Amino acid sequence: MRKVCVIGVGSTSYGKHEATARELVTNACLDAIQDSRIDPRKIEGNFIGNAFSIAEKQGHLGPLVMTALGIPEAPANTIEAACASGGSAFREAYVNIAGGFADVMLASGVEHVSQLDTITATSYFAYGSDYAFEGANGCSFPGLYAAMARTYFQKYGATEMDLAQIAVKNHENGALNPKAHIQKRITVEDVMKSMVVASPLKLYDACPFSDGAAAVVLATEEVAKSLGVEPVYVMGSARAGTIAAMHERVDMAAIPSSTLAAQKALKQAGKTVKDVNLLEVHDCFTIAEAVALEDMGFTPRGTGAKLAEQGVTRRDGKIPTNASGGLKSKGHPVGATGIGQIVELREQLLGRAGKRQVPNARVGLAHNVGATGGSCSVHVLGV
Amino acid sequence: MRKVCVIGVGSTSYGKHEATARELVTNACLDAIQDSRIDPRKIEGNFIGNAFSIAEKQGHLGPLVMTALGIPEAPANTIEAACASGGSAFREAYVNIAGGFADVMLASGVEHVSQLDTITATSYFAYGSDYAFEGANGCSFPGLYAAMARTYFQKYGATEMDLAQIAVKNHENGALNPKAHIQKRITVEDVMKSMVVASPLKLYDACPFSDGAAAVVLATEEVAKSLGVEPVYVMGSARAGTIAAMHERVDMAAIPSSTLAAQKALKQAGKTVKDVNLLEVHDCFTIAEAVALEDMGFTPRGTGAKLAEQGVTRRDGKIPTNASGGLKSKGHPVGATGIGQIVELREQLLGRAGKRQVPNARVGLAHNVGATGGSCSVHVLGV
Repeated sequence: MRKVCVIGVGSTSYGKHEATARELVTNACLDAIQDSRIDPRKIEGNFIGNAFSIAEKQGHLGPLVMTALGIPEAPANTIEAACASGGSAFREAYVNIAGGFADVMLASGVEHVSQLDTITATSYFAYGSDYAFEGANGCSFPGLYAAMARTYFQKYGATEMDLAQIAVKNHENGALNPKAHIQKRITVEDVMKSMVVASPLKLYDACPFSDGAAAVVLATEEVAKSLGVEPVYVMGSARAGTIAAMHERVDMAAIPSSTLAAQKALKQAGKTVKDVNLLEVHDCFTIAEAVALEDMGFTPRGTGAKLAEQGVTRRDGKIPTNASGGLKSKGHPVGATGIGQIVELREQLLGRAGKRQVPNARVGLAHNVGATGGSCSVHVLGV
Repeated sequence: MRKVCVIGVGSTSYGKHEATARELVTNACLDAIQDSRIDPRKIEGNFIGNAFSIAEKQGHLGPLVMTALGIPEAPANTIEAACASGGSAFREAYVNIAGGFADVMLASGVEHVSQLDTITATSYFAYGSDYAFEGANGCSFPGLYAAMARTYFQKYGATEMDLAQIAVKNHENGALNPKAHIQKRITVEDVMKSMVVASPLKLYDACPFSDGAAAVVLATEEVAKSLGVEPVYVMGSARAGTIAAMHERVDMAAIPSSTLAAQKALKQAGKTVKDVNLLEVHDCFTIAEAVALEDMGFTPRGTGAKLAEQGVTRRDGKIPTNASGGLKSKGHPVGATGIGQIVELREQLLGRAGKRQVPNARVGLAHNVGATGGSCSVHVLGV
């Protein structure tokens, strides 16, 4: 395996955009290319995480983006694994370079959903579930994650107040992120008073529907050195799956694919959870952050929901989690989310994260989940 | 790079199915697994070519299929590159094994579109074009390929009768393929009398909208030997792109991505066009077969349209092309098509193609195009 580095990153703001998916992701790619200083003609391909571009009447984003970048000969395609599309796209770009098939690749992701009303958008998201058994029977993602939260509460005695603290913490971080969708601090009271979406989850337990795009340039160590850019190494990369439908699993308060992917990625990196200085985890709902930290072994079962209140997951805590604001506050443009996590880790590891900088960040972990865990990718990055 | 083999194949029939995409592709994967004799627990992932499953209200096919196969821990995702989705999925499965990331992978593809009426299906297909400039202005794929045919006619003096001969030849082959969508011989007169779809292309110049799925198991040479299956080697693999919108290209009667991908794949295989004993090429319309044979260097510019009439591309000719019946007669379940080509090559190379067997087939080439060439993948297989 060859060493692979992230040598440049780009991102649009997350939120509401008039621009189409093809325009958003092209802009993010251009920013990443400029940041990396690479001659675009050296780029050998692009994997684009995207789930719903067809709702905009446009599939086959690959050649559109590569044509706009001025490198139409370089192949590109779309990768879809629901909300883990971005992490999956990053994984395959990594594989292509580590395996010797390319020296320089783009990995990118995009979503544009703000043209859809809330009911239609919720339906599109539900197509990522085991729709015949879940979505078609009325179980949208808020409902599925509510079942996860309810199970968790019953098993471990956690409360809605605990989850609210996770939202408060992530909004504190997002308020410092100029590209975040919701740059606003909130209080526990705000969360508790917000509209019930699917009990026990309320509006402020849920991430927003966001438009946005993110992109990274990956390259061999040799290319990074030749360009004189500060490399951030991809130390570990893994994907895993789990039973698609939540009701068929042994435990609805755990996502086994997170455990498996994290174990594999950390093993490849030669690291343990104790070596990780910061995490971007998939907090599509507050409960998801609590469960992810347990699934990946950062905290024992039943303790994840308390970490925000205890300060453990704050930027100055022992396990700084979602310094970007996470999906909760930074936003969740589905196909872009997993790539955006890599963008954040790179900025943090190079000390370029401005007001939300985590001190002494040397090893970061990105955790990207598709649906309720049917897909998961974990990447460990380091300097 | 490690040597990679196709060790098992499976396919549903192409045509109209009541079963959903998830069921179709699961069945094709089960057949491929059985054919390969592999213990399914050794399968490390699956790339699923698919473009339109969301029209069935189901995205995120990966974990659904892996759950149904009894191996939910193995990651899977969807790859979309319009009609080249299948070839792209095969490519990434190959990369993962050749690069040392896995020893055994599935590559599969599926489409289910028969629930859509013709206008809706044509619209969905058009989303694979540069929709803002092509589809939205009324240029569906029949229209775009008609422009290609018209350009070709003007440049080289070919006729509708020449193209009709390509349809006749492919239906002759498809009539011998028990899994083909249209198992019917047709005459030049049938083609000439058929309804005009987009002049000069008529109904019998066009492939049908098909449901169907195909799957292959890929593995290292060591795994193939340990199972005692006859290996078919992936000797060359390449993808390339070209300017997405046809009107922006220098020549509308050529697809540069086909040229580039074929050159790369043949070079990797250490072969020239003279070594290739049979081809499966992307004949979504009759004109596409003529142009593909020229793009890849099998015949000089302007001569491709005459090869069927001359007998050159018949099963007993010098360049046997689309012995399966091609997209034209075998059918075109978009995401499955590129995988189905690999299935056909493997059966031919092992002498298992029954009545449509091409004699002395040792090296085969599969050519899969997305849209009007924005994406192209070429694979060279050999025994």
